[in-house]
Amino acid sequence: MPEVVFSVDQTRSMRDQEVPGHNRWHPDIPAVVTVRAGAEFRVECRDWTDAQIGDNDSADDVRDADLTVPHMLSGPVAIEGAEPGDLLIVDILDIGPIPQQSGAVAGQGWGYTGVFARENGGSFLTEHFPGASKAVWDFHGVYATSRHLPGVKFAGITHPGLFGTAPSADLLATWNRRERALIDTDPGRVPPLAWPPQPHGGLAGTASGDAAERVLAEGARTVPPREHGGNQDIKNFSRGARVFCPVFVDGANLSVGDLHYSQGEGEITFCGAIEMGGFIDFHVDLIKGGMEKYGVTTNPVFLPGNVEPRYSEFLSFVGISVDESGTNHYLDATVAYRRACLNAIEYLKKWGYSGEQAYLLLGAAPIEGRISEVVDAPNACCSLYIPTAIFDFDVRPNAEGPVKKDRGRCALTS
Amino acid sequence: MPEVVFSVDQTRSMRDQEVPGHNRWHPDIPAVVTVRAGAEFRVECRDWTDAQIGDNDSADDVRDADLTVPHMLSGPVAIEGAEPGDLLIVDILDIGPIPQQSGAVAGQGWGYTGVFARENGGSFLTEHFPGASKAVWDFHGVYATSRHLPGVKFAGITHPGLFGTAPSADLLATWNRRERALIDTDPGRVPPLAWPPQPHGGLAGTASGDAAERVLAEGARTVPPREHGGNQDIKNFSRGARVFCPVFVDGANLSVGDLHYSQGEGEITFCGAIEMGGFIDFHVDLIKGGMEKYGVTTNPVFLPGNVEPRYSEFLSFVGISVDESGTNHYLDATVAYRRACLNAIEYLKKWGYSGEQAYLLLGAAPIEGRISEVVDAPNACCSLYIPTAIFDFDVRPNAEGPVKKDRGRCALTS
Amino acid sequence: MPEVVFSVDQTRSMRDQEVPGHNRWHPDIPAVVTVRAGAEFRVECRDWTDAQIGDNDSADDVRDADLTVPHMLSGPVAIEGAEPGDLLIVDILDIGPIPQQSGAVAGQGWGYTGVFARENGGSFLTEHFPGASKAVWDFHGVYATSRHLPGVKFAGITHPGLFGTAPSADLLATWNRRERALIDTDPGRVPPLAWPPQPHGGLAGTASGDAAERVLAEGARTVPPREHGGNQDIKNFSRGARVFCPVFVDGANLSVGDLHYSQGEGEITFCGAIEMGGFIDFHVDLIKGGMEKYGVTTNPVFLPGNVEPRYSEFLSFVGISVDESGTNHYLDATVAYRRACLNAIEYLKKWGYSGEQAYLLLGAAPIEGRISEVVDAPNACCSLYIPTAIFDFDVRPNAEGPVKKDRGRCALTS
Amino acid sequence: MPEVVFSVDQTRSMRDQEVPGHNRWHPDIPAVVTVRAGAEFRVECRDWTDAQIGDNDSADDVRDADLTVPHMLSGPVAIEGAEPGDLLIVDILDIGPIPQQSGAVAGQGWGYTGVFARENGGSFLTEHFPGASKAVWDFHGVYATSRHLPGVKFAGITHPGLFGTAPSADLLATWNRRERALIDTDPGRVPPLAWPPQPHGGLAGTASGDAAERVLAEGARTVPPREHGGNQDIKNFSRGARVFCPVFVDGANLSVGDLHYSQGEGEITFCGAIEMGGFIDFHVDLIKGGMEKYGVTTNPVFLPGNVEPRYSEFLSFVGISVDESGTNHYLDATVAYRRACLNAIEYLKKWGYSGEQAYLLLGAAPIEGRISEVVDAPNACCSLYIPTAIFDFDVRPNAEGPVKKDRGRCALTS
Repeated sequence: MPEVVFSVDQTRSMRDQEVPGHNRWHPDIPAVVTVRAGAEFRVECRDWTDAQIGDNDSADDVRDADLTVPHMLSGPVAIEGAEPGDLLIVDILDIGPIPQQSGAVAGQGWGYTGVFARENGGSFLTEHFPGASKAVWDFHGVYATSRHLPGVKFAGITHPGLFGTAPSADLLATWNRRERALIDTDPGRVPPLAWPPQPHGGLAGTASGDAAERVLAEGARTVPPREHGGNQDIKNFSRGARVFCPVFVDGANLSVGDLHYSQGEGEITFCGAIEMGGFIDFHVDLIKGGMEKYGVTTNPVFLPGNVEPRYSEFLSFVGISVDESGTNHYLDATVAYRRACLNAIEYLKKWGYSGEQAYLLLGAAPIEGRISEVVDAPNACCSLYIPTAIFDFDVRPNAEGPVKKDRGRCALTS
Repeated sequence: MPEVVFSVDQTRSMRDQEVPGHNRWHPDIPAVVTVRAGAEFRVECRDWTDAQIGDNDSADDVRDADLTVPHMLSGPVAIEGAEPGDLLIVDILDIGPIPQQSGAVAGQGWGYTGVFARENGGSFLTEHFPGASKAVWDFHGVYATSRHLPGVKFAGITHPGLFGTAPSADLLATWNRRERALIDTDPGRVPPLAWPPQPHGGLAGTASGDAAERVLAEGARTVPPREHGGNQDIKNFSRGARVFCPVFVDGANLSVGDLHYSQGEGEITFCGAIEMGGFIDFHVDLIKGGMEKYGVTTNPVFLPGNVEPRYSEFLSFVGISVDESGTNHYLDATVAYRRACLNAIEYLKKWGYSGEQAYLLLGAAPIEGRISEVVDAPNACCSLYIPTAIFDFDVRPNAEGPVKKDRGRCALTS
Repeated sequence: MPEVVFSVDQTRSMRDQEVPGHNRWHPDIPAVVTVRAGAEFRVECRDWTDAQIGDNDSADDVRDADLTVPHMLSGPVAIEGAEPGDLLIVDILDIGPIPQQSGAVAGQGWGYTGVFARENGGSFLTEHFPGASKAVWDFHGVYATSRHLPGVKFAGITHPGLFGTAPSADLLATWNRRERALIDTDPGRVPPLAWPPQPHGGLAGTASGDAAERVLAEGARTVPPREHGGNQDIKNFSRGARVFCPVFVDGANLSVGDLHYSQGEGEITFCGAIEMGGFIDFHVDLIKGGMEKYGVTTNPVFLPGNVEPRYSEFLSFVGISVDESGTNHYLDATVAYRRACLNAIEYLKKWGYSGEQAYLLLGAAPIEGRISEVVDAPNACCSLYIPTAIFDFDVRPNAEGPVKKDRGRCALTS
Repeated sequence: MPEVVFSVDQTRSMRDQEVPGHNRWHPDIPAVVTVRAGAEFRVECRDWTDAQIGDNDSADDVRDADLTVPHMLSGPVAIEGAEPGDLLIVDILDIGPIPQQSGAVAGQGWGYTGVFARENGGSFLTEHFPGASKAVWDFHGVYATSRHLPGVKFAGITHPGLFGTAPSADLLATWNRRERALIDTDPGRVPPLAWPPQPHGGLAGTASGDAAERVLAEGARTVPPREHGGNQDIKNFSRGARVFCPVFVDGANLSVGDLHYSQGEGEITFCGAIEMGGFIDFHVDLIKGGMEKYGVTTNPVFLPGNVEPRYSEFLSFVGISVDESGTNHYLDATVAYRRACLNAIEYLKKWGYSGEQAYLLLGAAPIEGRISEVVDAPNACCSLYIPTAIFDFDVRPNAEGPVKKDRGRCALTS
């Protein structure tokens, strides 16, 4: 167990920690600690919502979540000698939930997958599932099960949903400009096209005075992935992965949060994977001038680890870029993947799951989302791979037809 | 070796075979043979262009290809007892290139990956690579190498790019209607938004008279994947895969073509994977009423096989839905994947490959294209996984920087 | 398809081919062809018994097989420039059964697994299964099934059971000397401790006159693996494998035979894997002086390929070196593996298979045999891994107990 | 984190714990806790030697280790309702080293691989390596490195070397009888053929009075695996594995110890894998009457987990049952595996490692040991698979020959 450079008392909000974290991206958030290149260290994390979601059978907390709060990040950690233009090597040595005590917050033996209501965040299939729903997962070492999804058990592909280096002032300005431009194309949209800076709910780390005000006023929201990494939600950032992150400020200023016990590709439920607080162990190093050397200027590059759960049999679904109304979209992989997800849900409903249950399952289990082709105009083709071994029944099609059973229910709103 | 139910003389065009195939989708194309449910049989195939592309060092043939010709399909094969509403089980028992003789056509010991010119088909990155280019691959049993891509060798993930059941008249009308509507939004676009029916170049199988005229006038082009399967270009339809295809006409009328020695996910070069003629061995069976039983109404469902090439180490690239001009696109996985591809190409250029070479490599090698997240507004995140073992050098980033070498050249236009 | 340098007419015995092969190892067997280092070529093979075993429901042919005949080998192929002390690189590019015609001989759409009778060869469990038995397997592209083993289907891990370079005269003398010494410790044992030179049934390739007589008189039997490779029965010599073979004579003189559609580790049934005739495609090259450079003096070194069947779930059995009578053997991995095999057979019998059926299955399916520990005196521990996916039922233990069904029968003797 | 039912203070010997464990197998060792079938619980463990081996650069501690002490086991844990004849389902939910504090004992951030001296335990290759040696490994989350083995890094396949149910009095008597009979065949052998009961150094758990005396006098040593499981050293008992153990006494009485951060198959160094103290999380359940139901009477059956480190490329070595003096042994897999190990060591020496270093590496890294064939008289064939990715150089043979470098040194004796 390496040295803890950012510790969290899970009985208190991130705002009330001795050294608080942050929930906006801004170059003026001070590093809370400096480590050497070559160091190994541990960072403790809150769950992304700062414990707004409970281990219960109602999705009211998901419906009513305050979305100005996420993602609660731990850090920034400065790396000695890091300069703009370098690549920061980030090795994920280990990751796990919070040592269990009372079970009060996500990560202490349990986690959750939620679907946000359309009016409060929405999700990938929000037109089809406009209400909030939730599944609570119990952790059994490497395995997760859910009372809200009987018949399912799988080894989690544990990873941080979000980590990244701090943006430079220029880069931040670019983000704010381009996202504002997008919002302006449909300012009243529900859910919004993007999440603009929002002082309310903001947490500026250890910044104070003017700096804190700038962070709250200008700080980029943590929702989207951007050039520095950020909320990439790449499920393969699991144990043993090595990520090469562009550096934009002196010290790099690495922050992390949004730990996932597991996630399906797409994180289609948005709230989200199997969310939890916990810890992550990093090793860091530098490739001086690496951005230019390797042409890695706009996004991280990575090497996945080799201790992910391993499956060899999948049930796979296909979608093409014809939307639900029958309209053709030109090589639109988003529509194609949405159709693949909807096809999978229809299939799972035939076995007795509700649509909400199937949706939650796709957001949480180690499914793969593939771009099969994006050239055969007008239809992109995406496919979705569900490991068959996660079910305690044979989920493959056969001549007799599916065995429809009572599969319980997930948490819904009151 | 099971019975050959559709044979091809590779010295002649598909038009001149004793029993010709077809290159349009239409319910009036007669089945050329009927097999029983439970049968195993072999189908021989031309390469998708009917041998327009040669084993040479010029991409002029790609530039000048007649795109009214593809895809030359073998079939249709009718299955006794198949009725609309059934699911046709299609097992891919084996697949391979043409037994080598003169080497005159793709599949006889070699195949090709091409990038279409913008004016004649285009490709996924056509704005960046508007010209035609080509790599010729030599087959060494399970391995492929290319004189146009020195330093690379990999086991192919061999599969049919295209197979599917025949559409009903209603379904065909739906296709034509919705694709026409899309074209009408920008009729002069280059490349076109979709490929409308086109009598010129059409081949109606064994249809004659009025039926043949209807096929040529109304027949859907084979380019896009649709509800029946079609040109899905799913690389995991490899040996051992089982596909469940919706049935829309009596007999199902299964056709197949566009065999790929290998392909990267996305088939981003469009012309295309590693293209070849060859053979495919099928086993077929029926799930009566399976479409309703399993809710499989709009696209096939499948179980990938377990004899694909297996890698455990990948170099991976990330893209987000901010386009090359810096404009944000709302959760657009197509843009995100394009950026991931462009990032990979920039990286490979640092090692001495030309952009065209890198592009061709991504279209051919068994790379994976993943939808990492499609909910973190406004940026979708896609990732692209290149197996590191396909290079004869260590392609991973290190402190010294990449070793830039002369990596030869691919075929370009005159 | 590379050039065929050794062709076989499967309607005739290896003895009656235009260019016959051989079934003894001897430096005086002339090479039948010479290829360059760097060459790719195809070799055609008879099944190891020269077609003594038929596609029928009796094991009488196994019981009565003439064991002076195997293994019928194709070659030798000389490699230009190869000299003693070199390492011969042998790449297995492809391998497969005989193109199906009449089905008359093993490899034409079918193969067999046999257990030799104790009096005629014996097998690993000959004390438990002294009689002959047989299962005939039907090939369906990558998959095999057997009417003698209902409920089982798997992708074969196809490989040559036997290939190797020719021994020098000195090496041959060493073999004959040490094996004679072993035989002399119990000359009347049934089955014998080793197989001494045996002129009867021998085939000396294209040797004639004195040379032929020497080959028959002194030639080493092909049964055991030795320093040159030989009958190693390593199932992972599958497509894509690279083997580095020591060279003992000028030209290396590579011979090959005993093709297996599939095999379980141990080849415990002895007659044997899933035996077949067929073809194998090789690429060869040289590492001059490689034996000394790499210290590879006594046995080949190899890199397995990456297109083997892939499984992720196994049912595994354990054995320790306490024999069936309760006697302890000091760190004896052979006894431990035998007990693991017997434990697996007992388990499978609970599901309705006969002991012979279970035995045949373990010899044929892609099972793994592991040496778990060989130091915890006095008991070695071996384990045996059966992929669960090869059964069409759930073979894992559960609270209800196994479902015992009629699982048919394998071929037995009259 | 489930409830800890057996806790260990790592600053004290197992003998001095509040509730001590045991280091002999005997039915009279009282259970220290009883759990329900279906329970999940944590057990804390000492390293197998009770901390005799230190984090230093001398192998003197290995040379001088008191072998009457191992293996220090935690438990027994009784399971409510377990009766002789049942199968105890043991799920390995999680496993890991001791939370790091001072680093004083193995498991607190480090572990060791040792080779015992011939006079004190010996090892698999003790004739070749009669002296003691040692490598200390540092843990970096999932990865291990060693200052004694530069150039090597790998993800550990973490598992318990030893766990099992308690023997009945009858079974214990059988063990003692058969092992004594073996010892009597060569009573003075060094190392001994087996380890007889030995009161000196024994620890009888919470037994007292007559019971304690019986345990010390009759208790079976923990070295070998036996019918109940025990020291099987199966590396695939990693996270997610399910093991079905025969039950011989009421309550089953499960004990565990000898945790390994990683191990190569064979555990050929004997002292041993990468040894550590730590914790293990179990889930247990019962199959009533399962021994008879499934014919599992002599050894456990298991399902490996699916979160092991995953490799796809291996460098593999072959051995046959001809010993180092050139003598043939009849189908002796132990000799064959020994030769494969020696071949691997010779190869690694060509790259600059000492023989001791190579030996230690084979004992620690996730290598596979395969029984390739055990029927081709007189030579068994075994093979050993080393993942190539564990080296920071390309370890595969090539035309240039190996790059011999200074690879440091391992710990030796003074």
